[in-house]
Amino acid sequence: MFQPEPLTRLIEQLQRLPGIGRKSAQRLAFHVLKTPRADADLLCEAIRDVKERVTYCSVCHNVTDADPCPVCTDDSRDTHLICVVEEPPNVLAIERSRDYNGTYHVLMGALSPLQGIGPDDLRIKSLLARIGAGGVEEVILATNPNVEGEATAIYLARLLKPMGVRVTRIAMGVPVGSDLEYADDVTMHKAMEGRREV
Amino acid sequence: MFQPEPLTRLIEQLQRLPGIGRKSAQRLAFHVLKTPRADADLLCEAIRDVKERVTYCSVCHNVTDADPCPVCTDDSRDTHLICVVEEPPNVLAIERSRDYNGTYHVLMGALSPLQGIGPDDLRIKSLLARIGAGGVEEVILATNPNVEGEATAIYLARLLKPMGVRVTRIAMGVPVGSDLEYADDVTMHKAMEGRREV
Repeated sequence: MFQPEPLTRLIEQLQRLPGIGRKSAQRLAFHVLKTPRADADLLCEAIRDVKERVTYCSVCHNVTDADPCPVCTDDSRDTHLICVVEEPPNVLAIERSRDYNGTYHVLMGALSPLQGIGPDDLRIKSLLARIGAGGVEEVILATNPNVEGEATAIYLARLLKPMGVRVTRIAMGVPVGSDLEYADDVTMHKAMEGRREV
Repeated sequence: MFQPEPLTRLIEQLQRLPGIGRKSAQRLAFHVLKTPRADADLLCEAIRDVKERVTYCSVCHNVTDADPCPVCTDDSRDTHLICVVEEPPNVLAIERSRDYNGTYHVLMGALSPLQGIGPDDLRIKSLLARIGAGGVEEVILATNPNVEGEATAIYLARLLKPMGVRVTRIAMGVPVGSDLEYADDVTMHKAMEGRREV
């Protein structure tokens, strides 16, 4: 009775979002209460539009509002190259670096026996179909540099090499702009192992 | 072009919320994308209901869906007591402790010359009117234990004491369950200053 029911309900709904605890949900709910009505409407509209208009590309499985997605239908992109990533945000991270001009394939996850995610749960069949259709020369495995991503990359490499395509893995090493002092053992090991002639 | 426009727009809208940065906004937007349509609708409905149905009590200025609010209209509450707080969530914090049975007055902020918030920006006039109407015996100043809250409490004390009411300030000291080792200097000073006979 000390908190209006709609406010309690909004706090509950916000708490269901990932990374939002009770305090954050309360802060956000009070923000919504104070914010102009038009701003709250813009947020609702944005949520609704994402649910209504955003879907997944039937070719590369990236998020898109047109199927096939703009990357898959862009003639200026090099279709001989497929970069395999785990999730849609990873595509954005690669696009931000501005030096990749091939296509993508989003697996929608990584192999994880602990979480019960096996090869059939990932978009691997459609990747094999794209390569089987011909024209692909290189597959760049850009799954995350962690246990699951590494396992997924190794699994895919074994599947893809016999298909006659070049299979590469993005370099792992010390991140640019960091300090060696803060590099963990495994990263340092990868950096030494992957050293190149200058 | 690498991210569907509705998704970009949702990320932008989410970033406008307090405490939500670019990465959190992206994570939340992708969560909305993956979540069932019904859940997204529940969230939108909750936002809309808060904007439509929640208002401020004309007596104590707390948030409410009925005016006057349930606390102000509750006959079992002791109207001789008014607890003054800065914001509506503070009322909840006090209600959670379950040992206060008086009424409240929400100032909607605290004095802050740096942010240009003066006495006229707070709900002080209506507090004076409530006390002027008679029947109030004690005003508990429960503004936050920081510079602005303290300044507001001192300001209010000076205004209220001549009106013939008892004016008290909540105790400041080391929080229960904490360790003295982690208490800051000012808190420790307040704890020593406020020591009581056992």
